[in-house]
Amino acid sequence: MAVYTEVGDEDLSRFLSDYDIGTAVSFKGIAEGVENSNFLLETTRGRYILTLYEKRVAKADLPFFLGLMDHLAARGLACPQPVHGRDGRALRELAGRPAAIATFLEGMWPRTPTAAQAAALGAGMAELHLKAADFTIARPNALSVAGWHDLAPKCLPRADEVEPGLARLIAESLAELTAAWPADLPVGVIHADLFPDNAFFLGDRLTGIIDFYFACNDALAYDLAVGLNAWAFAGDRDFEVERARAMVAAYDAVRPLAERERAALPLLVQGAALRFLLTRLYDWLNQVPNALVRPKDPLEYAAKLRFWRAAPDLGALLLG
Amino acid sequence: MAVYTEVGDEDLSRFLSDYDIGTAVSFKGIAEGVENSNFLLETTRGRYILTLYEKRVAKADLPFFLGLMDHLAARGLACPQPVHGRDGRALRELAGRPAAIATFLEGMWPRTPTAAQAAALGAGMAELHLKAADFTIARPNALSVAGWHDLAPKCLPRADEVEPGLARLIAESLAELTAAWPADLPVGVIHADLFPDNAFFLGDRLTGIIDFYFACNDALAYDLAVGLNAWAFAGDRDFEVERARAMVAAYDAVRPLAERERAALPLLVQGAALRFLLTRLYDWLNQVPNALVRPKDPLEYAAKLRFWRAAPDLGALLLG
Repeated sequence: MAVYTEVGDEDLSRFLSDYDIGTAVSFKGIAEGVENSNFLLETTRGRYILTLYEKRVAKADLPFFLGLMDHLAARGLACPQPVHGRDGRALRELAGRPAAIATFLEGMWPRTPTAAQAAALGAGMAELHLKAADFTIARPNALSVAGWHDLAPKCLPRADEVEPGLARLIAESLAELTAAWPADLPVGVIHADLFPDNAFFLGDRLTGIIDFYFACNDALAYDLAVGLNAWAFAGDRDFEVERARAMVAAYDAVRPLAERERAALPLLVQGAALRFLLTRLYDWLNQVPNALVRPKDPLEYAAKLRFWRAAPDLGALLLG
Repeated sequence: MAVYTEVGDEDLSRFLSDYDIGTAVSFKGIAEGVENSNFLLETTRGRYILTLYEKRVAKADLPFFLGLMDHLAARGLACPQPVHGRDGRALRELAGRPAAIATFLEGMWPRTPTAAQAAALGAGMAELHLKAADFTIARPNALSVAGWHDLAPKCLPRADEVEPGLARLIAESLAELTAAWPADLPVGVIHADLFPDNAFFLGDRLTGIIDFYFACNDALAYDLAVGLNAWAFAGDRDFEVERARAMVAAYDAVRPLAERERAALPLLVQGAALRFLLTRLYDWLNQVPNALVRPKDPLEYAAKLRFWRAAPDLGALLLG
């Protein structure tokens, strides 16, 4: 939860004068989101989200992210639509940072997702994959196998300080996943971070998918693996088979999974768990004093990785 | 900037069912505010601010704060109006904390106040004082002279670690202010924390005063002294005589200052500076690791206190 950058009154009104969306009547920093500074901006014309991109987002990637949102919104996916300035540009600058305005979405992210919400998310994810199929910009997934190999040596020496046995879990999983990681799955643009706090709902209806700042090109089924890790555990640790099956079935109903994707899913969920274990562990071991964001618990993902590795018939578990 | 407490989906909808304001369609934590958790709540009926009172606000004081807002809003002051549940109660409980909903106010707080905004604030503060005159609950100011004497010994031993000479500045100011502090000024309910981030504007028009959680009974002119400290310095250090005089003159036009209030102002501004110096210094010296809020700079108020103490003819400076 964070707003890293203050925006001055005159800076804001000068910034808004480049758009055709009226003048500000309310401007509040939003406590959610850990990578960027987000503000709820209300103008005389409507409500918007203003984002200042902080240093963890590479400026060179912003045309991919904003272009993808434009592309998806134009095809009817419920997601924030970048607002373009009078000169046509959506990516601008404010308070010394890259900045963009996007449309506001109603709905709330589910603190305790239901199976019906997990299903709606699965269907929405499949819709995203289909609608992104003709998006022409590409961005490799920096947090796939090569990225894990980059992070692991930075984490392993101190991993057991966090939990005894953690280094071994990581090293073994990394070796096994590297050897077995599938290279022949259908690929495309994935969200790659579709956690509950990136999906808005009214009741069980998905009203929007937000936060495309990890989106990249990778195996489509890997997105589903990230989703299963993020949505199918109660209290962060207890596997909820009903949510998992609902998500996979709803995804499959919109974009039928190929047989090799189904077969790969037990491996992909382990990879996704390792990815979040590694990034969280890295942040945990490299905490900045007085940071405005509490690092997320890496052990939640160690537990999930262990669960996936120990599940006797994971395919059946996920696919029903 | 902070949201300290998560609110579950079902908790929120159960909570809202005790009101007559519809169901939630958006719910976002607000990054501003350091004492409580604030959420922008949009329902099918309108927009509201939901506040969870965290441990720094004494539960016993909440009837005073909420009653004061009710009282002021009923008399037409632009401030959040507590929303009462179907049973008539405004103070309720959510996620294990005292909680209340209040109406949403348009406007933005000024990052760089203008003299016109300082004037509007002065007039609004005087209006607040007049409209609170018949409010019947009382709350002593815990952060007046006795409170400074409580805080000072907790800060003095380590004050010079923050800036050499700080302990002496505090000890001398405290002794002098204690000896000279006026006891015969007109008293009433004051806001006591009327900083720019607690005042909303559209252009130069004051659209609302928020955050009454330091409100208390004390000398009315002391509120003006707090305001002068908070509004009349540019870049936190440089005195802006135009803003100061505009605030005092506009206050005086709505509620004429008594001669003894005018005479006391040079002392009151020092007291207000010392109050914020002490509370900030205490928080600075007692930082909680991984807190979600960065402590504010105590030296900003050391500089202001030094400025007030050194000003050759402070009365003329403030009163024009």
